[in-house]
Amino acid sequence: MKIAMIGLGKMGANMTRRLINSGHEVVVYDLNPDNVTHLAAEGAEGASSLEDLVSRLPVPRAVWLMVPAGDVVEKNVMALAELLEPGDTIIDGGNSYYKDDVRRGGLLKEQGVHFLDVGTSGGTWGLERGYSLMIGGDKEPVQRLEPFFTTLAPGRGDIPPTPHRNNSAGTAEQGYLHCGPVGAGHFVKMIHNGIEYGLMQAYAEGFDILRNAASESLPEAFRYDFECSEIAELWRRGSVISSWLLDLTAQALVEDPELSGYSGYVTDSGEGRWTVQAAVEEAVSAEVLTAALYARFRSRQQHTFGEKMLSAMRQQFGGHIEAGKGEKI
Amino acid sequence: MKIAMIGLGKMGANMTRRLINSGHEVVVYDLNPDNVTHLAAEGAEGASSLEDLVSRLPVPRAVWLMVPAGDVVEKNVMALAELLEPGDTIIDGGNSYYKDDVRRGGLLKEQGVHFLDVGTSGGTWGLERGYSLMIGGDKEPVQRLEPFFTTLAPGRGDIPPTPHRNNSAGTAEQGYLHCGPVGAGHFVKMIHNGIEYGLMQAYAEGFDILRNAASESLPEAFRYDFECSEIAELWRRGSVISSWLLDLTAQALVEDPELSGYSGYVTDSGEGRWTVQAAVEEAVSAEVLTAALYARFRSRQQHTFGEKMLSAMRQQFGGHIEAGKGEKI
Amino acid sequence: MKIAMIGLGKMGANMTRRLINSGHEVVVYDLNPDNVTHLAAEGAEGASSLEDLVSRLPVPRAVWLMVPAGDVVEKNVMALAELLEPGDTIIDGGNSYYKDDVRRGGLLKEQGVHFLDVGTSGGTWGLERGYSLMIGGDKEPVQRLEPFFTTLAPGRGDIPPTPHRNNSAGTAEQGYLHCGPVGAGHFVKMIHNGIEYGLMQAYAEGFDILRNAASESLPEAFRYDFECSEIAELWRRGSVISSWLLDLTAQALVEDPELSGYSGYVTDSGEGRWTVQAAVEEAVSAEVLTAALYARFRSRQQHTFGEKMLSAMRQQFGGHIEAGKGEKI
Amino acid sequence: MKIAMIGLGKMGANMTRRLINSGHEVVVYDLNPDNVTHLAAEGAEGASSLEDLVSRLPVPRAVWLMVPAGDVVEKNVMALAELLEPGDTIIDGGNSYYKDDVRRGGLLKEQGVHFLDVGTSGGTWGLERGYSLMIGGDKEPVQRLEPFFTTLAPGRGDIPPTPHRNNSAGTAEQGYLHCGPVGAGHFVKMIHNGIEYGLMQAYAEGFDILRNAASESLPEAFRYDFECSEIAELWRRGSVISSWLLDLTAQALVEDPELSGYSGYVTDSGEGRWTVQAAVEEAVSAEVLTAALYARFRSRQQHTFGEKMLSAMRQQFGGHIEAGKGEKI
Repeated sequence: MKIAMIGLGKMGANMTRRLINSGHEVVVYDLNPDNVTHLAAEGAEGASSLEDLVSRLPVPRAVWLMVPAGDVVEKNVMALAELLEPGDTIIDGGNSYYKDDVRRGGLLKEQGVHFLDVGTSGGTWGLERGYSLMIGGDKEPVQRLEPFFTTLAPGRGDIPPTPHRNNSAGTAEQGYLHCGPVGAGHFVKMIHNGIEYGLMQAYAEGFDILRNAASESLPEAFRYDFECSEIAELWRRGSVISSWLLDLTAQALVEDPELSGYSGYVTDSGEGRWTVQAAVEEAVSAEVLTAALYARFRSRQQHTFGEKMLSAMRQQFGGHIEAGKGEKI
Repeated sequence: MKIAMIGLGKMGANMTRRLINSGHEVVVYDLNPDNVTHLAAEGAEGASSLEDLVSRLPVPRAVWLMVPAGDVVEKNVMALAELLEPGDTIIDGGNSYYKDDVRRGGLLKEQGVHFLDVGTSGGTWGLERGYSLMIGGDKEPVQRLEPFFTTLAPGRGDIPPTPHRNNSAGTAEQGYLHCGPVGAGHFVKMIHNGIEYGLMQAYAEGFDILRNAASESLPEAFRYDFECSEIAELWRRGSVISSWLLDLTAQALVEDPELSGYSGYVTDSGEGRWTVQAAVEEAVSAEVLTAALYARFRSRQQHTFGEKMLSAMRQQFGGHIEAGKGEKI
Repeated sequence: MKIAMIGLGKMGANMTRRLINSGHEVVVYDLNPDNVTHLAAEGAEGASSLEDLVSRLPVPRAVWLMVPAGDVVEKNVMALAELLEPGDTIIDGGNSYYKDDVRRGGLLKEQGVHFLDVGTSGGTWGLERGYSLMIGGDKEPVQRLEPFFTTLAPGRGDIPPTPHRNNSAGTAEQGYLHCGPVGAGHFVKMIHNGIEYGLMQAYAEGFDILRNAASESLPEAFRYDFECSEIAELWRRGSVISSWLLDLTAQALVEDPELSGYSGYVTDSGEGRWTVQAAVEEAVSAEVLTAALYARFRSRQQHTFGEKMLSAMRQQFGGHIEAGKGEKI
Repeated sequence: MKIAMIGLGKMGANMTRRLINSGHEVVVYDLNPDNVTHLAAEGAEGASSLEDLVSRLPVPRAVWLMVPAGDVVEKNVMALAELLEPGDTIIDGGNSYYKDDVRRGGLLKEQGVHFLDVGTSGGTWGLERGYSLMIGGDKEPVQRLEPFFTTLAPGRGDIPPTPHRNNSAGTAEQGYLHCGPVGAGHFVKMIHNGIEYGLMQAYAEGFDILRNAASESLPEAFRYDFECSEIAELWRRGSVISSWLLDLTAQALVEDPELSGYSGYVTDSGEGRWTVQAAVEEAVSAEVLTAALYARFRSRQQHTFGEKMLSAMRQQFGGHIEAGKGEKI
């Protein structure tokens, strides 16, 4: 089958490769013509513009967007809305906010164009492992485009089946799922990333405590100098906390046991924030997911205004005693 | 080789079986003689008392305790201290506090008896998957008893090796590790469980937000009725958050999609609390691990005194308006 | 001077009284005619409709809305927009979201009508103590309407002046402040309430720990049976944590030392949620304000889906042992 | 009446002055003889050693310790235990851990010496405002030493009485309270400081959000440039969040509106940590008090090992994309 891919960054390019490798035809476009040239050399069909791209697709057309969330998605969807015809489908595979999906899906519906939001997990490993796909939108285009989802998804692989599960019941075992109406795919992906933040922070804190067990502020009898890379490796086998993130942690610790090559300045993408906002809107107490997000916020500051205010209050009620502790510069 | 196992609950019994199945000889003892009889029928050598147990072991003796942390461990260690001889070894495989290990190890050292603390992860799956072993204590007994650790541990299995790791470098790939001096094993196990709490809570909150996305308090356009069991299954393949805990979650959701058979009253064992105390002693900000523990505390309350105080304050400054909201009974 | 007050609930009625008592003329309107009648009996001028109300005001008109945030404010603002003339002013004294202010202010500006957002704190005590007013909007109407703000605000009272402060510098000492352009007033009020949640929760947790110090799960030597009402009274004098909220807490504890008359089901208004959303938008780590909000969310649940999931996971990896703890019903 | 004061730092010296000013006789001692000389010049009776100090007191003696918690208290209590006689009393007015009180009180009881633990709040303002005293120990010495407590405490002052409270019922209105047996005083003081951390952090976060409302990362229509010092002043009057800590905050902001003279490196004393440990021991969810402590921990780090681990994981699964964000140095 034939599909278009717009946006040939690491994700879009690898997804294109995975589709081509499975025998699909992919028309590709990117603002950077070099990216188009490279993919064309690997078997994709290059397009020189959105108009060109649309003209190269059989009807009903399928156009997959793999571009940065926000303005870039908005611009592309609006431009495609002008070019596409009733029955065509736009698939947003990026990390858009589900409320934007609902708005965009509503606009496109007025012209008869389908809109699918597909949360895509897999990172740089996806080319090899496949991409977990969380899909939102109408049933008909989801079913029609299933050959692409099947190809992109990891498939059953060597993951053991879940006991008592009726394995013929759905597509989840193959690594893709129609989660619900427009927005549902990105909602699920948002929560996926929110959980990811929480899991990462749980490991990070645990290893932080392990490492600080060597601190000289502790009584000598209760001080330990742990080898974090060995412990991470140990936990990969037979422990309750084994996971893919732990595998990656073990790998990072082998390469750089002190992690001294990493800054500790941690960025966050929209999904972590939207997860907290969804929790607040639903009145769900999401302490762990929120704390994981806030730890990233804090990691990017030298000292916050709030912390200076704490110093100031201590100075006010504790007097000059505090000055000796370096709180007043 | 021959070893004694004291405590034949689920963990001790299965560990005995795994040792026997590998050709070791195991002398077993339990306060409940039925447990001894059962294991004897499976090939263990039953003992009728601690004295009897000690007399059946070759010197230097090795006695593995698999009994509840706290008083029971204390009592057994003290009783064995009377019966054992210099060069013998007591192994505490339970979930003891590492500060108690340090104290007990110090007492036993005075009589020349070795003490090893072995944090053991694996739960009811350990018989089949093997037990992850985190070992603290002196080097000599750890090396001497390695045949037991090798047998109990999961081994390399089909877990892919960590890239760039020198796989001949240690025992971690086999699922056991000498982590440091006395207490180090239980310290690492403590952090393991602390991380486990954090991971569990991250998944729990994520699914909670997914499920409450169907709440009627939300605008209809942004409301989703997700099938949590399908989503858990989906994430098992190709996603960043795949893990053994997610496998278990998927399994639970297949059996009981609404989880209506579970109370939500969640107990905690010592390790989660000790992890927070270690973080506080080391001045490590462990928001996520702490929040995970506190969520369990809160799950066991109907309403806290603190919450009633919030109601009371709101009543005081908001007046009778608040009464209408049912805050004053 | 003459002003209109729409919305004669506890807040609107008392603010009307405070204005009348100071010699202002107030035209009042409420959907419930009884409320109008009552206030008219106390010296206000009753209006029978919005049209009637508008006709009773001298130009440029000033109309103060004291109605529930959301749809009711929206409806009133839109209705007044039809009735008012260029130069008139709408004041929203309720708890609206500052982003709604910005939108409404923009719409009204197109017709030359001023919009002021005035965050109002004081609760049922405001009639006597005065209302703290946080004002957003254009400078000209803020200055013109200052006589109303001066009357409603608490004034300097017996609050000691802040040392080194130039007391002639502004209006803050009198209890009202022009905080910035449209939305600024409600933004500051939002943060005020966010802080309020945090302060309340800090006291609530502290007293919760005090009270649970009597728990029989603690070693007897470290168990205390504290009288919370005496301790609250004590802290009112000379301690670092004295505050108005503590005064209210002491009062509640005198009346009901066990707080057994309070349910502990704690509602939240929009401001606490918006505070968290603002923190997330600004990438500020606001752990305490968020935890205070989440504690209220959790107080309204029997058991969350997330907690049931924790029970389920523990069941899966811990086997039947867990069943004994009542986790599986 | 006559009492001894050991430790003439800011707290001990000012308490001595307050006692002298009220007509009490105070024998003073400090390791630094200059401190003794200064106080002697103000009317105290200087002692040259602990022996000398003890010899100058009438029986039954009363010795107040105002020295740093931990080793210094331990050393002084042990030395005094040698010198004092049955019926004498040691008062620990510092910030000791209540579990140490219980141990010390038990040791002293064996020799018939009374031990009182007196949590003392008031900081550098105490000389003028008085000190809030939270007292633990036996009833008899507490009653006997009441004249000292009455003098040190703030008294009723101009704090309005709590409505419906029977004001003759106790001493709390005067600012001192016998809270319970040994340890109870420091337990209450510990919680007092735990609450203090929570209150401070609530204000700090609120002002942090206010200040970051000017951030250029926000849409221009929703950006505000607030004057924090004016807002703090405003909230001092008529608002729900007025408090003594807010008064101090307003004062600090007048002197240094940007707080640029403060480092934001915030130390913590034992009480905040012990509060969290008490919460954990009692299984009380104390999210806010814990988050306030952790914020201080974090304020003292450039980047934590945990944050570097987050960077490392992101590098591993996100590939070179992350490098561009400066995460890999």
